[in-house]
Amino acid sequence: MYLENIKKPEDIKSFSSEQLKNLADEMRELLIKKVSTHGGHFAPNLGMVEATIALHYVFDSPKDKMVYDVSHQTYCHKMLTGRAYGFLDENRYDDITGYSCPEESEHDFFTVGHTSTSISLASGLVKARELKKEQGNVIAIIGDGSLGGGEALEGLNTAVELDSNFIIIVNDNDMSIAENHGGLYGNLKLLRDTDGKAECNLFKAVGLDYVFVKNGNDIDELIKAFNLVKDSTKPVAVHICTQKGMGYKPAQDDRETFHWTMPFDRETGKTLMSFEGEDYGTLTADYLLEKMKKDEKIVAITAGTPAVMGFIPEKRKLAGKQFVDVGISEETAVAMASGIAKGGAKPVFGVYSTFMQRTYDQIAQDLCINKNPATMVVFCASVYGMSDVTHVGFYDIPMISNIPELVYLAPTSKEEYFAMLDWSIEQNKYPVAIRVPENGVISSDRPVKTDYSELNKYEVAQEGSKVAIIAVGSFFELGKKTACDIQNKLGVKPTLINPIYLTGLDIELLENLKTEHDIVITLEDGCIEGGFGQKIASYYGKDSMKVLNYGLKKQLYDRYDIDTVLKENHLTSEQITEDIKQIL
Amino acid sequence: MYLENIKKPEDIKSFSSEQLKNLADEMRELLIKKVSTHGGHFAPNLGMVEATIALHYVFDSPKDKMVYDVSHQTYCHKMLTGRAYGFLDENRYDDITGYSCPEESEHDFFTVGHTSTSISLASGLVKARELKKEQGNVIAIIGDGSLGGGEALEGLNTAVELDSNFIIIVNDNDMSIAENHGGLYGNLKLLRDTDGKAECNLFKAVGLDYVFVKNGNDIDELIKAFNLVKDSTKPVAVHICTQKGMGYKPAQDDRETFHWTMPFDRETGKTLMSFEGEDYGTLTADYLLEKMKKDEKIVAITAGTPAVMGFIPEKRKLAGKQFVDVGISEETAVAMASGIAKGGAKPVFGVYSTFMQRTYDQIAQDLCINKNPATMVVFCASVYGMSDVTHVGFYDIPMISNIPELVYLAPTSKEEYFAMLDWSIEQNKYPVAIRVPENGVISSDRPVKTDYSELNKYEVAQEGSKVAIIAVGSFFELGKKTACDIQNKLGVKPTLINPIYLTGLDIELLENLKTEHDIVITLEDGCIEGGFGQKIASYYGKDSMKVLNYGLKKQLYDRYDIDTVLKENHLTSEQITEDIKQIL
Repeated sequence: MYLENIKKPEDIKSFSSEQLKNLADEMRELLIKKVSTHGGHFAPNLGMVEATIALHYVFDSPKDKMVYDVSHQTYCHKMLTGRAYGFLDENRYDDITGYSCPEESEHDFFTVGHTSTSISLASGLVKARELKKEQGNVIAIIGDGSLGGGEALEGLNTAVELDSNFIIIVNDNDMSIAENHGGLYGNLKLLRDTDGKAECNLFKAVGLDYVFVKNGNDIDELIKAFNLVKDSTKPVAVHICTQKGMGYKPAQDDRETFHWTMPFDRETGKTLMSFEGEDYGTLTADYLLEKMKKDEKIVAITAGTPAVMGFIPEKRKLAGKQFVDVGISEETAVAMASGIAKGGAKPVFGVYSTFMQRTYDQIAQDLCINKNPATMVVFCASVYGMSDVTHVGFYDIPMISNIPELVYLAPTSKEEYFAMLDWSIEQNKYPVAIRVPENGVISSDRPVKTDYSELNKYEVAQEGSKVAIIAVGSFFELGKKTACDIQNKLGVKPTLINPIYLTGLDIELLENLKTEHDIVITLEDGCIEGGFGQKIASYYGKDSMKVLNYGLKKQLYDRYDIDTVLKENHLTSEQITEDIKQIL
Repeated sequence: MYLENIKKPEDIKSFSSEQLKNLADEMRELLIKKVSTHGGHFAPNLGMVEATIALHYVFDSPKDKMVYDVSHQTYCHKMLTGRAYGFLDENRYDDITGYSCPEESEHDFFTVGHTSTSISLASGLVKARELKKEQGNVIAIIGDGSLGGGEALEGLNTAVELDSNFIIIVNDNDMSIAENHGGLYGNLKLLRDTDGKAECNLFKAVGLDYVFVKNGNDIDELIKAFNLVKDSTKPVAVHICTQKGMGYKPAQDDRETFHWTMPFDRETGKTLMSFEGEDYGTLTADYLLEKMKKDEKIVAITAGTPAVMGFIPEKRKLAGKQFVDVGISEETAVAMASGIAKGGAKPVFGVYSTFMQRTYDQIAQDLCINKNPATMVVFCASVYGMSDVTHVGFYDIPMISNIPELVYLAPTSKEEYFAMLDWSIEQNKYPVAIRVPENGVISSDRPVKTDYSELNKYEVAQEGSKVAIIAVGSFFELGKKTACDIQNKLGVKPTLINPIYLTGLDIELLENLKTEHDIVITLEDGCIEGGFGQKIASYYGKDSMKVLNYGLKKQLYDRYDIDTVLKENHLTSEQITEDIKQIL
């Protein structure tokens, strides 16, 4: 075992070529062992074993600074920079994050989880080095999939202006999470097919020097190339061709499934997690496929994450031209959706909440100012969603619900979600976003309406008095439970309200509440600041109505335990009932 | 006069080449006449006269759909599509907007004012046409300056995937608002220098067909090229080289000054508007230049709008390497700022509020999750700022103040602004944004503090009782006036508070207010929903304190009269005093 003795990158500098190759085998074995039992990003890391070794062999981290894009491929970097324990010791698997993390190591420079940021972030390190007249290489490492994102393309365009040492490693495994989409991938293919010799070269077109590495899983070839560009005084792109999933056949054969994976049987590659229930992704794809059959104007759009709304490869094939993957280009996805709606067809853009952040201006300008009736389906906007600090999705309500003209709907059940989706697709007045519930697929115990065009009409699910609970989306279940608790413990039957709309107030209902109620509580599965409940508090500001807003405090959250976070934010029915007891 | 008789684009189809040229002369004369007396976008429109005529001569709008990027260059399009009155008749100059506007004409498809959106928006029209099996050309018209923005580059990358008629006219005048920055401009130059024949071709690299037009101000040459691509069944880029400012020598000689201009003397080109007072742009540039001399780690950053913080060409030259223009790439600007701060230098990114929207994810992820101490200076975030619907800048408080870790400061005076800027540049703990006041440059009548590192400590500017006025930034003056009015008319001396921080509450102060106050009013020069005041309302939700939030209702605003908007939103001291009278 080499890795047990590698505490810092220098420790591999004296290795022979043979030893480096053995080290690669060892690292690959650890990747397979950890991810097959623990889950994680898999195929991208398998492809980057040799390149990571070669980078640390040639460059001197942290004086030479490596910035990994999206950081789905940093496991090997972590192994070589003092964090091998996170792979060698099963009990310490969770001691390291799955992403680049400066708090863990001086060899990491940014906390990264969104794609397409590395070149622009690294360009700042270059500029700082120049201003401070320091030495050292700055190296951005970006995958071909990430290259199509706006920030990456901007960064690529800007790099040459720095006119100084700046090494951009393009890790071309001919794959995004799913297959690549975009014209630049034709150019990457041309370059691969011509051993980098084609005259028409995207990197040269934006002014970069260019080095091609045919076998990006060959350590010797990589070392030669990296030595060539080390201490370069000009921005240079090093295009390395790697095999995603290298060394584990099921991952090589099905690179999409093994991009990120739950634990699996290493012999067969079959997943160890069986999930029997319904999920909104699959339900959404199936609903849309049915609807597409009847209406050829319906088109589903993804920005590089087709699985978010259940469009696994077979279903993409079924949808045909009615499914568009723009690659990791959320800005274009929203603008295109606006254009499609303007053109009289019916676009549905499915997106993780955390990545919707990448397209704020397109939502505000391209879509909402133009009032085009496109539909956005927002997933994982919830405390029950993803919990890595870069993937937390519950800042969406402050972000988009305050954009004029947008209608943001918060369904509380499966039936309500599909009624809203159906309405949204068929209406032609409003840009609509729908916040998919994240507390499991729950059926409604109430009839749901089919027409949402009379905006901001809330639903009274239970009539009561004294206390009114306005419970949004995923938190409607918490509202129900709290209503029960209050009735049982305090002898008061509260009114329970499903507000449906996050983008406006039901003034008539709020006014009516004044006659029989003293307290309104709002429950939202989102950041409380700038959110829905504060609008209610503001509305009642000059009245005697007491308003208690419940939601998640504005702060960073990272790899949290849901129950702990809920408790810390007073988001259990017991705590809320106790609060009410104090006031009543 | 031809234009008086041109009511629709068909009206020029029968024109001879000679007549088209005469029409161009006539249109250019109208542009000079209107803009010299009225102000507006000038040099971009002068350059596009011939291309617009040729487009309408060859294509059949609105069946063929033209989407203009940023729409700084749509005046000629408006002249040919039934809106010549907006140029022929001085009394009707304001009857048309300065941007593409679907409400005005069926020949406009989107309301556009931000750059880099045309290709992605038009791609939606292409997709809708294909889904609906309709006919017609879709034409995106984009300037070279806009091409460097992330959304444009994403769109360019995505276009070829549509595999259908899609014509992208690249209007290359070798200029952004200021000079271009970015590697792709080297490629455009190479293509110009080789009459489009160079093998290394950015457009071909992303899979597009390519047509070069050497003289983009020659109608015959343009018509030939447009006829060549009309009804093309593949995406194609038509690279036309035009002269920005064509036909008006002062504008040809100083393309930056004449990009957008206030009224000027057409003989000399000298501006007719004299402005004697101070402005925050100039003050900021001068402050930074002084500071740069003493500290070579300070660097000012712009995303294609150097004038926003006063960096006119001479001052850019003085700043040298300490000034970076990344082109119209706000995403890269913020990520680079984060990287520069991480690298130990001191970045200051100056940006119009409306364009800050283009970089939400980079603020949240690249900057704030990483807690890097970069400074963003936000201009025109105010009802007193720009008033075109696409340029309104007062949605910033809901947008960024709810992002964890950001410190958003709202200075009330010149002294406070520079104290904050100085503190922010020198501190190394927080990502900071500063909201530059927009109600003129006002000197403080109170001493200002120099250290803002104890977060969320509000300033009590006047001690009083019963009513507390918390007045943010530009609206502090309104707060002062309201405090006077209340004292004079109602006999109550209010407490007046400058909250300084938009990103947190001063709990101690808010608690203390409870003892002597019954009413808190908040005044913010921004969208009220999701903003600052609603946090105060929420804080007092379960208390008897009455809270009145004043600000701007969430809605679209377009070319508004400030006083009318202020009145409609109850934002005069008289109205507020009257409201208080009702409650006291």
